Parts: sequence; structure tokens; C-alpha cells
Amino acid sequence: MRPVDRYLDPDSTVRYVAKELYETIADLPIICPHGHVDPALFADPDYRFSSPTDLFITPDHYVLRMLYSQGIKLEELGILQKPATYEPPNSRAIWQTFADHYYLFRGTPSGIWIQDSLATIFDVDEKLSAENGQAIYEYISKKLQKPEYAPRQLYKRFNIELLCTTDAATDSLVHHQAIQASGWDGHILPTFRPDALLDVAHPDWRQEIDKLNNILGMEIGSYGLFIEALENRRVFFKTMGCTATDQSVLSPFTTELSANEAGEIFQQALRGEISADNGRRFTGHMLLEMARMSIEDGLVMQLHVGTYRNHNQTIFDRFGTDMGGDIPVQAEFTRNLAPLLQKYGNDPRLTIIIFTLDETTYARELAPLAGHYPALKLGAPWWFHDSLNGIGRYLDQVMETAGIYNPVGFNDDTRAFPSIPVRHDVWRRATCSWLGRLVVQGVVDMEDGSEMAYEMAYGLAKKGYELE
Amino acid sequence: MRPVDRYLDPDSTVRYVAKELYETIADLPIICPHGHVDPALFADPDYRFSSPTDLFITPDHYVLRMLYSQGIKLEELGILQKPATYEPPNSRAIWQTFADHYYLFRGTPSGIWIQDSLATIFDVDEKLSAENGQAIYEYISKKLQKPEYAPRQLYKRFNIELLCTTDAATDSLVHHQAIQASGWDGHILPTFRPDALLDVAHPDWRQEIDKLNNILGMEIGSYGLFIEALENRRVFFKTMGCTATDQSVLSPFTTELSANEAGEIFQQALRGEISADNGRRFTGHMLLEMARMSIEDGLVMQLHVGTYRNHNQTIFDRFGTDMGGDIPVQAEFTRNLAPLLQKYGNDPRLTIIIFTLDETTYARELAPLAGHYPALKLGAPWWFHDSLNGIGRYLDQVMETAGIYNPVGFNDDTRAFPSIPVRHDVWRRATCSWLGRLVVQGVVDMEDGSEMAYEMAYGLAKKGYELE
Amino acid sequence: MRPVDRYLDPDSTVRYVAKELYETIADLPIICPHGHVDPALFADPDYRFSSPTDLFITPDHYVLRMLYSQGIKLEELGILQKPATYEPPNSRAIWQTFADHYYLFRGTPSGIWIQDSLATIFDVDEKLSAENGQAIYEYISKKLQKPEYAPRQLYKRFNIELLCTTDAATDSLVHHQAIQASGWDGHILPTFRPDALLDVAHPDWRQEIDKLNNILGMEIGSYGLFIEALENRRVFFKTMGCTATDQSVLSPFTTELSANEAGEIFQQALRGEISADNGRRFTGHMLLEMARMSIEDGLVMQLHVGTYRNHNQTIFDRFGTDMGGDIPVQAEFTRNLAPLLQKYGNDPRLTIIIFTLDETTYARELAPLAGHYPALKLGAPWWFHDSLNGIGRYLDQVMETAGIYNPVGFNDDTRAFPSIPVRHDVWRRATCSWLGRLVVQGVVDMEDGSEMAYEMAYGLAKKGYELE
Repeated sequence: MRPVDRYLDPDSTVRYVAKELYETIADLPIICPHGHVDPALFADPDYRFSSPTDLFITPDHYVLRMLYSQGIKLEELGILQKPATYEPPNSRAIWQTFADHYYLFRGTPSGIWIQDSLATIFDVDEKLSAENGQAIYEYISKKLQKPEYAPRQLYKRFNIELLCTTDAATDSLVHHQAIQASGWDGHILPTFRPDALLDVAHPDWRQEIDKLNNILGMEIGSYGLFIEALENRRVFFKTMGCTATDQSVLSPFTTELSANEAGEIFQQALRGEISADNGRRFTGHMLLEMARMSIEDGLVMQLHVGTYRNHNQTIFDRFGTDMGGDIPVQAEFTRNLAPLLQKYGNDPRLTIIIFTLDETTYARELAPLAGHYPALKLGAPWWFHDSLNGIGRYLDQVMETAGIYNPVGFNDDTRAFPSIPVRHDVWRRATCSWLGRLVVQGVVDMEDGSEMAYEMAYGLAKKGYELE
Repeated sequence: MRPVDRYLDPDSTVRYVAKELYETIADLPIICPHGHVDPALFADPDYRFSSPTDLFITPDHYVLRMLYSQGIKLEELGILQKPATYEPPNSRAIWQTFADHYYLFRGTPSGIWIQDSLATIFDVDEKLSAENGQAIYEYISKKLQKPEYAPRQLYKRFNIELLCTTDAATDSLVHHQAIQASGWDGHILPTFRPDALLDVAHPDWRQEIDKLNNILGMEIGSYGLFIEALENRRVFFKTMGCTATDQSVLSPFTTELSANEAGEIFQQALRGEISADNGRRFTGHMLLEMARMSIEDGLVMQLHVGTYRNHNQTIFDRFGTDMGGDIPVQAEFTRNLAPLLQKYGNDPRLTIIIFTLDETTYARELAPLAGHYPALKLGAPWWFHDSLNGIGRYLDQVMETAGIYNPVGFNDDTRAFPSIPVRHDVWRRATCSWLGRLVVQGVVDMEDGSEMAYEMAYGLAKKGYELE
Repeated sequence: MRPVDRYLDPDSTVRYVAKELYETIADLPIICPHGHVDPALFADPDYRFSSPTDLFITPDHYVLRMLYSQGIKLEELGILQKPATYEPPNSRAIWQTFADHYYLFRGTPSGIWIQDSLATIFDVDEKLSAENGQAIYEYISKKLQKPEYAPRQLYKRFNIELLCTTDAATDSLVHHQAIQASGWDGHILPTFRPDALLDVAHPDWRQEIDKLNNILGMEIGSYGLFIEALENRRVFFKTMGCTATDQSVLSPFTTELSANEAGEIFQQALRGEISADNGRRFTGHMLLEMARMSIEDGLVMQLHVGTYRNHNQTIFDRFGTDMGGDIPVQAEFTRNLAPLLQKYGNDPRLTIIIFTLDETTYARELAPLAGHYPALKLGAPWWFHDSLNGIGRYLDQVMETAGIYNPVGFNDDTRAFPSIPVRHDVWRRATCSWLGRLVVQGVVDMEDGSEMAYEMAYGLAKKGYELE
């Protein structure tokens, strides 16, 4: 039912070339250098997904937000209020609500991911609808209990070569340890995420420091010890296979503080007497510190910029994070990154990968910066922009100025494990369409196009994240 | 002369599908939920347009601005200085100036609207030029005097189902009353526009309050009475068929004031002693108040954001408003709308429709917000962006994140009555082209595409503005 | 090897029409109204380019930045540290480094320019590579010594009608004088660039004033004399054939100072006691003064907006300017240009041509402003955006609102003389593709499309820069 040349450029000449390029890369292994899949899935070889609802609806904030925007209450989707004051509907009823409103996803990336996951993983080629909702639920439910639908089996079937998770700096990495101890030959690597430790003005920061104290068996009473503790954790993550860090900031503001000033602000934070502005400056300073550490220990540094978290206070208060209420804001990179790049941007040992939700910065700031500083690379289209049009705009706005070798290919950034092959497939088809246009227009020849397709599908991610 | 598949996607495969979709919706009635047509046109059944010049040139700020930008004085186009110190050229001479410079509109939406209006309404298929200007003037002039060119007849011929005007909150709606009293079966509905009453720091604000005092026979001496007066006028508009309000703001800044503070600022305004900043805060507060009223009385709330009015002071001083000197500025929605959306954005009784001239906010802020908050919807591409490329960029940037069901279809936003069918036709052709690409790329099938075409041409506007 | 319809739209119908349009303009003479070619090339009839490296690599910051971003040191590319502490590699070795990394330019405008320059000027149709690098070096080197590769001969062969250089306001224009004295019939015109004299807060400003004192044989001790000196230099440039000025500003901030205030700030500057903010206000004021002078002496006024110069401090300190470290920042025009446009924007004697690196301002601010103010015109896509996609985005975002007659066609803005014909050719092909789409979509007919192609390739630049 789904055409083999789906998602490729609609122009027949371009599609022909794009398909030819696509065929050379369609079967390459999948590299997942950044994402949010739960490592617990792979720690237990007999893990099973409990229902189609738990697979496709409850954990997917893209799905929740769209349904919520059209008046469906989160309660009806099985999201539990905290504390929960009601019994959620059963999985089957939630699935039916989803099926009844499946038309809302027409033309969206979620629509593509769901449709293709159903087809490629479960052989469900029918379009989900109010009528067939229960039958499809039944059909998938049964399959999910079979051994071949265990995450480790799907990992193989998906042809994944390597999958990075995202883990708090204070995480014990117990699941990663279990995976490694099990002798399984899949590659699940942790990523070092220190956000909670660096947001010194956050009310919960003290708790985070206590966690760090506990895990290290020390008392972090000074800025110097704090730096030492972070370096210590990075060493531990590295021994567990980690090759990268990840930070999320509202603004990519960077600044260099003197050791004295950093020390003083850190003491204010310990006393819970820190101002918002000092918090901002400390975080901006820690971006430089993280870059310095990366130069020393070789971890790739990722920076996700521009999300206003939990915009919908009511929903956040009732249901917590990741309910679709994170909204992008404008970003500025040229001035904000100047202190960081002027200090470390010329160092060939450093790789900083930037992600943004503000597409206006691609052609104006990010591509020019990445096309100059040896340390700066560009991440894939992120979140709302991991879509056919979003990828198209990214390629259109980035590649002429930065070339294809300063970006680092694709990552799926997903917590929805079953959607991984579809997401990579959409990227591969979209890049081959873009390359097809270049070939038809005579900008590159087929030989170059083919090498570029390989790099964008596989090679660049591996090199960029030092996964080789 | 004009091809039947004009304005559709140039790719032949896409065009074929687009045309098929277009044919299913081309004859749907036209819904005009927002615009600036003068209701007086319909109050008098025997109304006639006086000349081609009065129809196509004098009231069209798109036409005036383009001619002015190329050195043609507004005086030559019949615009009267205030006070007028000269005799304007006659209609025929103005038309000739227009015809002489008609080439300036090549490739512009005005060019499309004029060309198609001439062809579809007057059967003028020739391209306007210096040579044929007088003959075409003559030909149209004669037609305009015929009964079938009266606005009420054109309304039927255009297949309009319903047309909303825009009316000051202090307007007596005398023309709407006349239309309703006449028993004519067209649907001309007023829209409640309170801008002049809410701009408390404007020098003319006192006059507006006096108008309101007069029309209500009361003395608005307090903030409480002011709110009451606004609610009172909304009730009156509703009895006249109104389903929506409309506000235009430079920035969508919102804030909640205490009743005390609002009351105090209101008194400052009455005394003419209000600061610019208090004016801004009061207006930001009134956006919340208008949302509260909409929840109570059910009127849909429209917000037009980001116009720097009367940028060209010289032209404004000499000729007044609407001479092409309104210029967009950057907008910010994520932070500015937070107070409003956090308070009322989850209420299913509320509909807020946002229009912007800053396209950079579509993918970054507006689509994510509309794809989450139940109360928030997106208006059609506005003003400069109501064009083939503008519509294309809108669909490209909005639909993947918000879906097609959070936007509310199209509105023409025009004061040029004869251009209405063409404007809707361009939108319909552009959406069918976009849908055609989705179908050819296998993102949606023909069945879905066809339902989406119907919604985007007709259904969504009707639902979004509660016109059912 | 390169297809004749290269770079045209990939759609076969559009390409057919685009090619037909292109054939009518491909042989039009080239107008270069703005650029940075060294006039010394034409002063000496026997000038020869010394090597392929000096032609294609060392002076091209696009090439340097891309190679540098991928870890190649500027030293390896023959760039001399100041003071130079090492022997640079020889030209042949540098060329080999370039050839080894030529793949980095795949899909970039540099890739197109290099490939087409090699093919059209030197008949090198092979793709440069590590293997053929030395042979191609040899082949080009030999050709460069032949008389037909002298700049004056290439000027004729390139079919250039007229080429403007960019020259400091304090320049003696000695090369222009030599060219004119030589009786050669090429047209090389100077452009008046006063930036260094207007940046009153810059540490080197006093030196610039001293240069001006010397060249005029006067002592500029007051604001009045400063204005007089500038006017004086403009007169001299005009006698040398100059028709335009050029200024580069980080922000297009404009403001009008009283003569007193301007005088006072000027004295502060002379004393070296000027604040950054007064510097900014003085420069903003001088934009109005430059507009006033343009009204009086008829020179077209160019404004390049939004470059953060020398972002990479380390590289700047070691190698100086133009090493690829200039990075764009956001721009704002609606509010910033208001004082200038309100004072002079309605004057038909004035032409201000704006260039930007912030594409978000095209549809939002610049096209609306240029489509209204008689004095305001839009420059071609600048720098990073002088590319197939950049031109496409420019046409898409500008033309519907401003029409094609408010922009002023194309300029190559290059210091790389041999790339001039390719750059114009890419523009011509891209505009014909855009026009081809308009024709296929029925927005304009072939007659209009053909006139538009002529204007965009040739007529508008000539008119806009008053080169007729």
C-alpha cells in the first residue's frame, strides 16, 4: 500500500535519481548518537511492551499534545494526575480515543511515524480509524507478547549498530551495567547530562548536589570540589562507553568568570541565596568549563538551545513534565557563543554540536559559525523540525554555507524506540531527494552524490560523535 | 487565455492531483469570517460602484504603495491631501496612470487579483496596458452601471455564504440594521473591534470614551463601568449576529493587573496623565479581560500582531491612514502570551485566533503553541503574505507541527469586495497544490487529501469562527 | 561534461521555459555595480596572475574558511602570520592541499564557482582531486602567463560593460587615474567608502582623520570642516566616474543629532574621549548626513547591514581581517531606519540600496519598506546568500511584496575577478528558473517573463546605480 518511493521528491526526474541514491544507503546500519530510549528495555532480555497504547500513545508527547490541543483531556489518554485522584481509562479505551482522532495527524511527522511503524513492524497496512481501532489493537497486542518483539530482538531487526541514551550525571548507570554484564552484543552507550547540577539557581539544585555527594561519598563544599566531582563523573561515564555530553539551555549565553567569582557564586548557591542573574552567569561560565573538560577528556559536547520548558503551568502542576508544553523561543548565537568560541573554538580536540529550534539562525548564524570554527558542528533538525519540511529547510539553509561535512548527519532524539527506523528512513529519503535535486541541476555528479548520501546517512554521525 | 490549472504547482504529476482535488472544492460557497468590506454596499440594493478607478485603485493600499514606491505621487492617484488644496485628476486619467504602470505588478499578488478580477467579473481577458487602458476603462464603466454589478448581485454571483465586516465597538451598526431590516437573504455580520477604546495612552482615547458614553447614555468614570460598557457593547453586537472580536496590537504582550492597579491606571488615562508604559500594561491586561469575556459570551477572539502603523510620517500627516505606510516588525509570542494562555488557554470555551506578519514565528512559536493549547488557533497568512509564496511558506511551516485542524482555514481580510472570489480561489489552488504534493509523496492518500481540501476551503473557517 | 541547462529548476517543464528565457539574456553584457576587485589589475596592461593558488585560494575567504573549519591551518594555505615567523608552503603544495580537500565544497556556491571558472576560463572539465591536482596546476599555470589571461583581456572576454571597485574615502585613486590615462576603453569606476572616517569611536579613527588632513591639505578641527571634507572627497570621486557610496554597519540604527550635539561628539572623538554610545549615535546621525549629501550630489547610497567583524579574535590577532571570521547577526530595519526614511525617504532624488545577511527581514521589513518608500531599493542576496538557494529564498520572499522593480538586480560583490562571469550566470539561471515557474503557473506570460529576465539580468542594475 505504501509506495516504495514514498517521501521522495515529487518531481519524477529527481525522484528517479533520489531513489537510485536511496537504494545504495537504505540498508546501512542505524547509528543513534543521541536519544532518550530507556536503557531498561535492553537490561532485561525478556522485556515486553505491555500494550499498543504504552507503545504509541502514553509516552509520546507529540501525540499527547496534538490530541490535547483538540480538546481531548490528558486524563482520557491515561495520563495520571499527581497525586492521582481517578482511575485512568483502560488501554483499549485510550487506543479507541486515539483511533477516533487519528485524522488529526494527517500531514504531520507523527502521522508518518505511526503509519510506517504499524506497517513495517506489525504489518498493519490499514489506515487506523474508529472502525478498525479495536481489531488493530488486538492484532498488535498479540504480537507484542512474542519473543521477536522484545527490545533486544527489535534492535537487531532494526539494524541498529549503536544507540546512545541520555543519563543524569548522578545516574548510577545500573541498566548499562546490567547490559554490559549480560554479554549481549548490542551497543547501548550512556550520555553524560549534567543540566540539573549546573542550574545553580533552581530550587531543586541542593538536592542534586546531595545526590552527587552521596554517589561520590564526598562533601562538595567548594567550587573547586564541584569541578572535581564533575570531572570524576565524566571519567566514570567514559569507562561505561560514553563518548558525549549533552546540555539543554534556554539561551546559549556564555561568559568566563574568574575562579574567585565562580567560587563566590557557588557559595551563594550552596546557601540558597543566589540571584537569577548570577545563576545565568554561572551556567554561562560552566559552558566554558564543560568545553575545557571536553578538550581534556575527549567527550563530544552537545548543546540543545532554546526551549521554554513547561509553558503551560496548569498542565505542569497537574501532570508534570513532557506533556507537550515545551515551546521554543528565539535564539542568538553569534554574540552569545563568542566567549566560548574565542577561547576554545580553534582547538581541534574539541567538538561542540549545536541543536536549535530557531531555524532563523541556521543560515544567519550557525552555518557561518560552523563553516569557520574547527570545533563547531551542527546537529540534525531537532524535535518539531525532524520532519520532511523541517529537514528540507535545514538542508536548504545550512549546506551551502557549512557544507555537508560540518553538520554531523542525523539523530532521532526519541524516547519512542519503535519509531527509530522510520525516523532514520525519513531522513535518508529526504537527504536523497535533496541530493537528487543537486544531481539533476548539475551541482554535483552521481559519484559525489553517492558519497554524500553515505556520509549523511551513516559516516558523519559516526565521525562527529567519535563512535569509530 | 488564463489556463484552467493556473497557480497550481508547476510539477505535472502534482498538478494533476492538485487539479483533481481542486475540482471537488472549487464550487464550495465562500466563507468570509474576517474582512473590511463596507456594509453600506449591501444596505442599499441599488448601490453602484462609480468607476473602475474607485473599484480597483483608490481604495487599494497594495496598489497605491507600489505605484508610490516607483515615484508616482499620491495626488496623481486621486488621493486628497487634508485639507485638499488641489483638484484631483479625473478617474479616467488616474486609470491611465495605472495602466501605464501596470507592469509594476508583474509577479505580485495584486497582479493576480487584478488580472483575475478583470477576467472573471468583467470578461476582460486582455492584459492592461498604456494602449488599451482607455478602452478597458470604458468597457468596465458601462458594465458597472448595470443591475447585475450591484454588490448584492455580485455577492450571489460570487457564491458567498457569509461575510463578516469589521466595526468599531462604538459603531451603531446602522448599515447592518438596514440590511437586516431589508429582508435580503445575504449574511453580512459585524465584528467587534475595540482597539480605539483599549489604547488608553492614545491622545484620541478620551474622544472614544465620549463616543461610548454617548452611545450607552452613561458616564464611564471607573474601570468597573468601563468593563461593563464593553460587555454591554458585546451583547449588542451579538444580537446583530456578531460571532467574533478583533484586536490589532503592535506586540502581543499580556499581563494580569490587580483590579486596583487597573482601576488606578484607568483613572490616570481619564485624567490624560498616563505613561506609555502604563498604557502598554493596561492594553496587555485588557487582552486577558477580552479573553475572559469571550469565555463568558462565546465570541471568538482575533488578535492581529506586529504592525508599525503609519511609518511614513509625511504621508500620514498629509493623507492620513492606509496609504501603504504600515510596516511589520518582529513579534514574540512564547513569552508574551504566557500570562494569557496560562490563565485561559486550557479553557475549551475559548477560541483565540492569532495572525502575524512575522513568519519566523510560525514554525518556532505559533505552531507549537497552537498544537498544544486547546484555546489557541492560527489565522490565515495575513496581508503581505496572502500570496502564492506566502501561503506556501505558511503551509510548509505550520502544518507539520499544528496539523491542519488547529489553523482555521482562510479569510481574505480585504476591503476590495470584487477581489474576494479571486483571493479565495488562490488559497484553494495553493492548498490543493500542497495537498497534491503530500499525495504524490505518499504522506496522505487521496481520500484524506480530499477531506483536508474541503476543510481548508470551507469547513475549518466555519467551525473556527463558530459560524455553523 | 557540465550540462547546458545546469542550475536551472529540476522540473522539466519549468526547465524548458527557463532555458528559453535564459537564452534571450545569456549574452547580455555584465554590469558589476558593486565589488572588491583590485583596480591595479587593470592599471597595468601586462598584469599577470602569478599562480592558480593566488587566483583561487589565497584571496578567497569562502575557500579559506571552509578548509579552516575542517582543521586545515591557515599557515598551510599560505596565509602569513603577522609578523611572519615561518616560510609559507609553496604555491604548488598549497594547491595540492586544496585539491586533497576539494570534496568539502560539494553542494556549495564555492564548488560551483570553482568548477565553472575552471571549465569556462581554462577549459578544465575534470573534477579537481588529489590525483589530478598537480597536472591541473601545471596546465593553468602555463595559461596564466599568456597575454589572453591578462585582466584587461579577460574583462573583454567576460563581456563586462562596467565594473565598480570599492575605495576608501581617503584613497588617491591612483590606479583609476592610471587606467583613465592609459586610454583603455574598459570602464572601471570607483565607489566612495567612508566607513573608517565615520567610525569615530574606533581606536584608529584619528589616523584616518590625519590621512584626510593630508590628502586635503587642511586641518579638520570641527564637525563643520569634517562635513565639508567629506563633501569635498565625494566631488573628487565623482570626477573620477564614481556613481555610488557604500557603508557597512553592524546595525542600521539612524538618528538625527542637532548640529551642536554632533559638533560636541566630534570634539570628544578628536580628543579620544568618546563613549561607545556616542560613537553609535554619531554614526547613526552620519547616515542621515550621507543621505542628505546624496540628494545634493546624486551619488547612490549603499548600506550593508549586520556583520559582526572578526569574530575569531585569535585568528584576527594572528592573520588580520578577511579570514572567514565575519559572522552575521540579527538586523532590525523598521524602527532603525524610521528617522532616515521619515526625513529623506520620500525624496525622488535619493536612492538607498540596502543589503542584509538577515534573511528574516526580507519579507517582514525590507520588501514592505522598499515597496513603499520611493528612495528605498533592495540589493542582491549578499555574501553567504549569493547561492542557488539563497537567490531562491530572496526571490521567494521579496518579489511578491516589492515587485521586481524596487530591487536593483544583481551584483557579484567579489574580489575574485575570475569568478565574475560564473556568479552572474548563476543569478541569471536562478532568476530564469523563478520566472519559468511564474510562466508555467500562469502568473505572468512569456512576454512579461522575457522583459523581467532582461531587467533582472541587466536593466535594473544599470538604472538602480544610475549607470546609464
